[in-house]
Amino acid sequence: MTDLVDLAALRDAARRIDGIAVRTPLLESPWPDLWLKPETLQPMGAFKIRGAVTAISRLGAAERARGILAHSSGNHAQAVAYAARRLGIDAHIVIPDNAPARKIEATRGYGATVELVPLTERFSRPAELQRETGKAMIPPFDSLDVIAGQGTVGLEIAEDAPDVAVVLVPVSGGGLISGTAAAVAALLPHAVVIGVEPELAGDAAASFRAGVRQEWSPHDTARTMADGLRTFSVGHLTWPHIQAHVADIVTVTEDEIAEATRRLLIDGRLLAEPSGAVSAAAFFFHRDRLPPGRTVAVISGGNIDPAVLRSLLA
Amino acid sequence: MTDLVDLAALRDAARRIDGIAVRTPLLESPWPDLWLKPETLQPMGAFKIRGAVTAISRLGAAERARGILAHSSGNHAQAVAYAARRLGIDAHIVIPDNAPARKIEATRGYGATVELVPLTERFSRPAELQRETGKAMIPPFDSLDVIAGQGTVGLEIAEDAPDVAVVLVPVSGGGLISGTAAAVAALLPHAVVIGVEPELAGDAAASFRAGVRQEWSPHDTARTMADGLRTFSVGHLTWPHIQAHVADIVTVTEDEIAEATRRLLIDGRLLAEPSGAVSAAAFFFHRDRLPPGRTVAVISGGNIDPAVLRSLLA
Repeated sequence: MTDLVDLAALRDAARRIDGIAVRTPLLESPWPDLWLKPETLQPMGAFKIRGAVTAISRLGAAERARGILAHSSGNHAQAVAYAARRLGIDAHIVIPDNAPARKIEATRGYGATVELVPLTERFSRPAELQRETGKAMIPPFDSLDVIAGQGTVGLEIAEDAPDVAVVLVPVSGGGLISGTAAAVAALLPHAVVIGVEPELAGDAAASFRAGVRQEWSPHDTARTMADGLRTFSVGHLTWPHIQAHVADIVTVTEDEIAEATRRLLIDGRLLAEPSGAVSAAAFFFHRDRLPPGRTVAVISGGNIDPAVLRSLLA
Repeated sequence: MTDLVDLAALRDAARRIDGIAVRTPLLESPWPDLWLKPETLQPMGAFKIRGAVTAISRLGAAERARGILAHSSGNHAQAVAYAARRLGIDAHIVIPDNAPARKIEATRGYGATVELVPLTERFSRPAELQRETGKAMIPPFDSLDVIAGQGTVGLEIAEDAPDVAVVLVPVSGGGLISGTAAAVAALLPHAVVIGVEPELAGDAAASFRAGVRQEWSPHDTARTMADGLRTFSVGHLTWPHIQAHVADIVTVTEDEIAEATRRLLIDGRLLAEPSGAVSAAAFFFHRDRLPPGRTVAVISGGNIDPAVLRSLLA
């Protein structure tokens, strides 16, 4: 039996992130029935700050004094670096040396020690560091503390839109949807939470259909432009949350992701990264698969590469 | 003697806009010392919703039943149309027939009756309508109710950043800066409010230096890309607020406005219209003229023309 995050854990997380993460507003959109939850407004541009702060702040005094470890090539690295600085804790982040320079600089900019490693050592080196230093590892999604932190998104939606019918959430490792769905199930039993994934990285949708957690090849998931959603499987702790609380997982095409990112910017005035716009893509292009009524799309992040932004607008 | 908006009027306005305007968060930016107040997140993309809701909701029952009038080619038209719909009141908006189709459609989309008139009739036709129908006119800035509504921006800044040293506010007719400065003067006497204007539409800066309200030619103010800041003079009611509460008005060049708009989007993940980005431009390029310390730039609107956006990113 795996534990699921409950309301008490979610509310504890909400207290821990208060004053560090942004309490994002729920925005009316130009599209009837659609509201947007802009996690793009977080200090490092994505929801991941919520889970990082929750997990780090729950460490004991000895662990905090020792400092923490994380590995990531994306938003998680920046979130852990930012959260650690705000909580006054040393962070050591392992990043593959092919990660975008922009993200490496941002992580360093938050004061973390960044160690660049060859792609092949991106899992082995952090494990080695953990053994050698005894530092606590902050995982990107497969942790009940991280899930509870990301789930504060769901608490806020329940507060701002108690009459919501559908909540659309991007799925990668599953931390955001697990926590959000736990909150919605506890507070809004009439609402459904639906995951959204790129068709080209549709491991969670395939898992959901099969009823069994599937792993895809990283070579396959790397095909999507939604670089935050290339994780090749949901986690061992997130999967039971998805099974318990998520009503469906739909997939969207690359063209749909690009068009949704463009519409959010041009008509919705919101800069999203492609990974953050998949939820809106499901609303725009697959509404026939969604229940009717007031819908919230979680726009999970805004760290778009400037070259990608230019090409979307060209 | 002209009345100035006081704290009681500001707090009354805050109650009136609650649940209609977005309570925008104060966002940490990638630039040390700079925080952003993103009014771009309002339903129609600009702070003007605050003043429109305040002014309309203060009308008496008979005036509300009669419906309201407004004239504008920009964000004010959309704000009045949106506010009227939310408050269940008919709105008749006069718009010059050379206004962008995008803004005309948006105003109609909020359910207002839109009347297009030749540019030469943009003031005479609304006055005629007012005489004929007895409908109340909602002015874009020169109204104590509108000033109080816009000033809720200042109340929120005082709540979220009580240690702020400098608040930078775009200036056009002066409604936003008048209300914001009234709030800051009442609640944060240690902080200064500084207006920012395009050099090419620098009538308020010239007025401030001269100590006397100046009018510029509309042909001159039309030169700036900041189309929301082309008003050729501050108002008769806003001018005394500026004299009483504003510490300085600085001007920024067109290149500085363009670069600030670009930086806000690429590095700050915030889509601003050029008019909304002038405050950030003052921080980026004229910090030598500003007091040191924690600075808030009000990013007043996000209704940028897609063609302008593309050209900024090209």
